[in-house]
Amino acid sequence: MITVGILGGGQLGLLLAQAIARLGGATAVYDSDPDAPALRHTAGPFVASFDDLSALADFAAVSDIITYEFEHLPVEALKVLPKEKLRPSLQILATAQDRLTEKRFLKDNGFPLADFVEATSMDSSRLLDFGLPAMLKTVRGGYDGKGQVRLESEADISRQKERIGKLLNSGEPLVLERLIDLECEVSCIVGRDEKNEILLPVTRNTHVDSILDVSVYPCGLEPSVLRAVQEVTIGVARTLELQGILTVEFFIDRDRNRGIEGVLINELAPRPHNSGHLSVSAFSQSQYDMLARILLGLPLIESVPIYPGAFAMANIMGESYFVGEKLSELNCCHSEGLVDLVLYGKAQPRRGRKMGHLVAYGEDAESAERRARQARDAISAG
Amino acid sequence: MITVGILGGGQLGLLLAQAIARLGGATAVYDSDPDAPALRHTAGPFVASFDDLSALADFAAVSDIITYEFEHLPVEALKVLPKEKLRPSLQILATAQDRLTEKRFLKDNGFPLADFVEATSMDSSRLLDFGLPAMLKTVRGGYDGKGQVRLESEADISRQKERIGKLLNSGEPLVLERLIDLECEVSCIVGRDEKNEILLPVTRNTHVDSILDVSVYPCGLEPSVLRAVQEVTIGVARTLELQGILTVEFFIDRDRNRGIEGVLINELAPRPHNSGHLSVSAFSQSQYDMLARILLGLPLIESVPIYPGAFAMANIMGESYFVGEKLSELNCCHSEGLVDLVLYGKAQPRRGRKMGHLVAYGEDAESAERRARQARDAISAG
Repeated sequence: MITVGILGGGQLGLLLAQAIARLGGATAVYDSDPDAPALRHTAGPFVASFDDLSALADFAAVSDIITYEFEHLPVEALKVLPKEKLRPSLQILATAQDRLTEKRFLKDNGFPLADFVEATSMDSSRLLDFGLPAMLKTVRGGYDGKGQVRLESEADISRQKERIGKLLNSGEPLVLERLIDLECEVSCIVGRDEKNEILLPVTRNTHVDSILDVSVYPCGLEPSVLRAVQEVTIGVARTLELQGILTVEFFIDRDRNRGIEGVLINELAPRPHNSGHLSVSAFSQSQYDMLARILLGLPLIESVPIYPGAFAMANIMGESYFVGEKLSELNCCHSEGLVDLVLYGKAQPRRGRKMGHLVAYGEDAESAERRARQARDAISAG
Repeated sequence: MITVGILGGGQLGLLLAQAIARLGGATAVYDSDPDAPALRHTAGPFVASFDDLSALADFAAVSDIITYEFEHLPVEALKVLPKEKLRPSLQILATAQDRLTEKRFLKDNGFPLADFVEATSMDSSRLLDFGLPAMLKTVRGGYDGKGQVRLESEADISRQKERIGKLLNSGEPLVLERLIDLECEVSCIVGRDEKNEILLPVTRNTHVDSILDVSVYPCGLEPSVLRAVQEVTIGVARTLELQGILTVEFFIDRDRNRGIEGVLINELAPRPHNSGHLSVSAFSQSQYDMLARILLGLPLIESVPIYPGAFAMANIMGESYFVGEKLSELNCCHSEGLVDLVLYGKAQPRRGRKMGHLVAYGEDAESAERRARQARDAISAG
């Protein structure tokens, strides 16, 4: 019996824990929030701060192997974990949790990405020197669009002067990033163990307010662009000497001369990813199965589409629980093509908080996406 | 947050617990065996004998609602559980755990089943009076073919004299049951709450040594026979005033004049069933989702096939782990059409012990079944 320790007990940790259980493994789950969903579904719950060295050591003692479900973890504290138990490695975690380190790593290794510059303590008058449109982002801790300012024009800079000034003078490390002529965003998930590399089929992702809203398979990219996405993903995994899974998020530029065939890396996540939820229904091996196999020492299998047709995942946000200002139960009713519904069991629905997701099947990408949106409308409160 | 208490921590309990987790619920799991798989995946494990009244009361105190994953439970002890928390009811459990009570209930209510007679303390010379071929079965505790003797002819009776004598004189309650001209076996799973009844699509089941080996959807029955199966299933659920799920196993007689359209009830299981494993991949709502929804108070949705095509489930028995006499790891490799692989994480593979299952997809029932068998061969040890 192998026990997998998971740092982080959110929905990604829960769904990973379920895949581990379905392959005969046991789990331990570590989170600072006693209400984290995955803590309720393990016989090895650890509730402690992520920099509690003694709790981390206890956690490591019961875990044969350790992984993480989010990357905003204190790398210094995690050095207490035996290096050989951690997959992916601490070095990969350190790279992926810092936008600037990540971008420099990618640039230094010749991977395509949009122009960027370090903007820490930059004078706001110098923003224009870099050129617009651009995005100002904090280097750490920002996710789901937090800590980001979009600058389309000079007018934006004056209009958001206060917010920009606050960021620039916060002492926080910042990066300024060139906005491209965005056709779409896609992501590619790769799993890698000592012997094999397996790619999941690529999904196309739509964001609302910088939060993932809908993911669709197939992604609809032309073959040469799709090939570039896959080759870059494998290249990054090999360069990082990945053991585990890695999600690479991409921008696709309308100008196919930018990057490689218009392909530019947005960011890396060395863990299961929201855009991979549909892999549970759609492919012979999901992102969770893939990581579970790597952690349990089982061989990877092919992650291929099984059914003729398409799948779409729609995130269910806290907003779905509100009728006006009133908080209500969801209508968990039937909707055409609905193949999966997951509610994360978070204590309190809040606007902007991911509460669940659903997956719909359709004949083609358009119909799957329409059905996923219809299903989400149908199950909203009211 | 609703906590569902599950009596029994085997694979059915584990997969039910996963469905509950995916709908935002919490679980408690009760088993007498500390190695039971589902105990490893709950923050509410209870390890105690099933007739430990004090442990049962503690278990009931943390559970908002209680169900069970197998029916060989001590009904007297379970009376300590608050009646209104138990779904399905204790009365249904008592009926389903005793073959004779179950058969009398079915007969008294006009449901079709093969002729039977109580055989407790019967003299072996009287076996022939009932008529052959027949099956002698213990009334309680027998499952997966344990405690059964098949009697095709007078010669069988003399050949198995000792075994039959032992059963007849054991003091165990026994039933003698007419064997029919069996075309095939099928099962139908029904879920029922205060408002709705939902049927899962019917599967065709093949047994080896009285243990379920392969289940296939679609079942291939002609419409009138399929309708009889569904109507009988709903009838039984209504007569039992079921709140929860119920699996009805059927014999289909080649003689369509027997029973209703050749349909005869074999037995009832008021819980998730092995033949329902494929529902996770194949239908919009699996048997586990259906029961989870009933227990969590969420509305039932339609359980309809989503994909054009067929699904087959193959059980993985302890035998798969042996190369000759040598116990080995499984080859968990890729196989065409493989959509799901579940390994139960039981401590020790033993011949005749269910260790896992897999599900394969195919264009039609034949191809799905062939692929499921191929996948099982491919992942066997060696």
